Amino acid sequence: MTHTDNTKLITELKILKSEKEFSLEGGNTLPELEVAYETYGQLNENKDNAVLVIHALTMSAHAAGCYENDPQNSGWWDDLIGPGKPLDTDRFFIVCSNNLGSCYGTSGPKSINPTINKPYAMDFPIITIFDMVNAQKVLMEHLGVPFWHTVIGGSQGGMEVLEWAIAYPELVKNAVPIATTHRLSAQNLAFDAVARTAIMEDNNWNEGNYYDSNLPASGLSVARMIAHITYLSEQSMHERFGRQLRHTDKYNWDFSPEFAVETYLEYKGDSFVKRFDANSYLYLTKAMAYFDLGEKYGSLFNAMQRTKARFLILSFNSDWLFPTAQSKEMVSELRKSGKDVSFLEIDTKYGHDAFLLEATGPMTDILRGFFK
Amino acid sequence: MTHTDNTKLITELKILKSEKEFSLEGGNTLPELEVAYETYGQLNENKDNAVLVIHALTMSAHAAGCYENDPQNSGWWDDLIGPGKPLDTDRFFIVCSNNLGSCYGTSGPKSINPTINKPYAMDFPIITIFDMVNAQKVLMEHLGVPFWHTVIGGSQGGMEVLEWAIAYPELVKNAVPIATTHRLSAQNLAFDAVARTAIMEDNNWNEGNYYDSNLPASGLSVARMIAHITYLSEQSMHERFGRQLRHTDKYNWDFSPEFAVETYLEYKGDSFVKRFDANSYLYLTKAMAYFDLGEKYGSLFNAMQRTKARFLILSFNSDWLFPTAQSKEMVSELRKSGKDVSFLEIDTKYGHDAFLLEATGPMTDILRGFFK
Repeated sequence: MTHTDNTKLITELKILKSEKEFSLEGGNTLPELEVAYETYGQLNENKDNAVLVIHALTMSAHAAGCYENDPQNSGWWDDLIGPGKPLDTDRFFIVCSNNLGSCYGTSGPKSINPTINKPYAMDFPIITIFDMVNAQKVLMEHLGVPFWHTVIGGSQGGMEVLEWAIAYPELVKNAVPIATTHRLSAQNLAFDAVARTAIMEDNNWNEGNYYDSNLPASGLSVARMIAHITYLSEQSMHERFGRQLRHTDKYNWDFSPEFAVETYLEYKGDSFVKRFDANSYLYLTKAMAYFDLGEKYGSLFNAMQRTKARFLILSFNSDWLFPTAQSKEMVSELRKSGKDVSFLEIDTKYGHDAFLLEATGPMTDILRGFFK
Repeated sequence: MTHTDNTKLITELKILKSEKEFSLEGGNTLPELEVAYETYGQLNENKDNAVLVIHALTMSAHAAGCYENDPQNSGWWDDLIGPGKPLDTDRFFIVCSNNLGSCYGTSGPKSINPTINKPYAMDFPIITIFDMVNAQKVLMEHLGVPFWHTVIGGSQGGMEVLEWAIAYPELVKNAVPIATTHRLSAQNLAFDAVARTAIMEDNNWNEGNYYDSNLPASGLSVARMIAHITYLSEQSMHERFGRQLRHTDKYNWDFSPEFAVETYLEYKGDSFVKRFDANSYLYLTKAMAYFDLGEKYGSLFNAMQRTKARFLILSFNSDWLFPTAQSKEMVSELRKSGKDVSFLEIDTKYGHDAFLLEATGPMTDILRGFFK
């Protein structure tokens, strides 16, 4: 990893192959485990500067910098990670891995099942947020990291931050869950349930066996369109699209997508189908549905009592998917437990997507201060 | 129509067949028009007691009472319409017709196209809220009603109330739009666009030609599931379902619907498929998308200036589909125009569905007062 002239990190995707059996929370095992990851900066001699950055539902290990042969493709949090940036690669050894169950190099349903030499598809066992954390722990041990200076991530990544801090209190010094929740609400569960139904009702889904035929593109596209609505605030949708028509100021008087917001969603759906695996979408949303810290540890208070981390919890006032109230529930239980917790609701119009879009906004200074 | 012992109205569905060409806002015509309707109470001698009740997206002309052979199947606003009820059938002649484009007896895509003696399917022309109003106007003339004492309805029905009061100011003395808007927001447009995509991407949809083969059940079910989420408030979903599991307190560790909210939505989707036509869903949501009073009349102020009706506008504080802010925009322009407008935001946890579910709640007394 070197700096380019404009201090752009050059990075590469690495794969850890572990041939040890990997046990899962649901009782199953994977005969082997692959974890795709990237690292930025160097582990220092004291080994006390490692930061784990965790991605959201459909992202990858490519959190920062760019690949030598693909300079335009910057990582999803490149604004925050790099030399002199809040997550300063001159100071920290930063690790980001693709989540277990995803489709960007870590073991998931499209991985080859070694026992039959074909993709697992729906034979992949159900996984949980805890399993994702444990896959990261395998990587941690491989990298010789004794503990995390900080674990940080947004949305699904934030759930993993919480699980890390509570399941492995000795291994996490600082925890920064952003735009996340300790459990999905009924409305959250509902949106994801409809998304999964759309995928599984697509004829091409074929019980998950589509890897050598047509993809369940319609179902996955609809799933993504639904999700995209929940990622934006009503205000940002209004300001960006309003009732604008896409091509003209006249109605088409037909059923083609004609409002700008329609063509935007259609584009988002279509482009998602090209980059994401439908079965992964099922497994990852199911893992989120099962995540419930209070249920797992008896109560949210009991869960929070376990942690030894200093917490910074961030929410966004226009995020209606994981609203601030959910963050406040966590803050409240952490405070009752006498934990070190700092909380901020950031004022933004970007809704849930703010954890990406506000990376150059108020989040920069807040994280710069936190990592000082 | 007679009263049963418990003052339950006995009603019947009637069909008006008009063989006159019916002109549409988009420039097309229907060679003939059928309007399914019910009436409750009697038109008085002065012909000044007629009330038009307009249904929402997927409902029917069956607003009140029950059919002689089906005593359990009460109309969708039976709590509000009947002898001694706020919409008092001892005083008013109440009319409810199935909306143009729907599938409960009024002309729509599943109706027979007389020129080819087959269902129109997607050859049915695009219709608008104004066209729906004009189909009601054909019925009005048939019934000998010279003007409406009141036009009242919720959601899509509320859009028709607005169109009535503004397009035909001489014909509407009182207007009661409930839980509605003068135009869909970008977020509203987005949800409906995804719903239409889900239907049209279903292989069984077959460009709308499914009337003698398999229905596009998956697509229509997904469309309905999405809509249902938007009809409920987050609070009511939480109170009703939370994270409860349906059959047991253990996870299934598979992809079957297991959270109560999942099985509820699946049930709602499946039962909708049995009762509603997918093509109608496309036409009716498209009509809502095109509805924009301000665009049609130059500005919302210009639109509101036209009306001669006394207005009562009702919204619900937990309705996030058509939030109170949209009603307030209308109230504001009516007030600027010096019109007689009364406005109330009703406190309820039921979200958009409150216009049905609160029929026995605060809405009863408010409407009783209004109709006194």
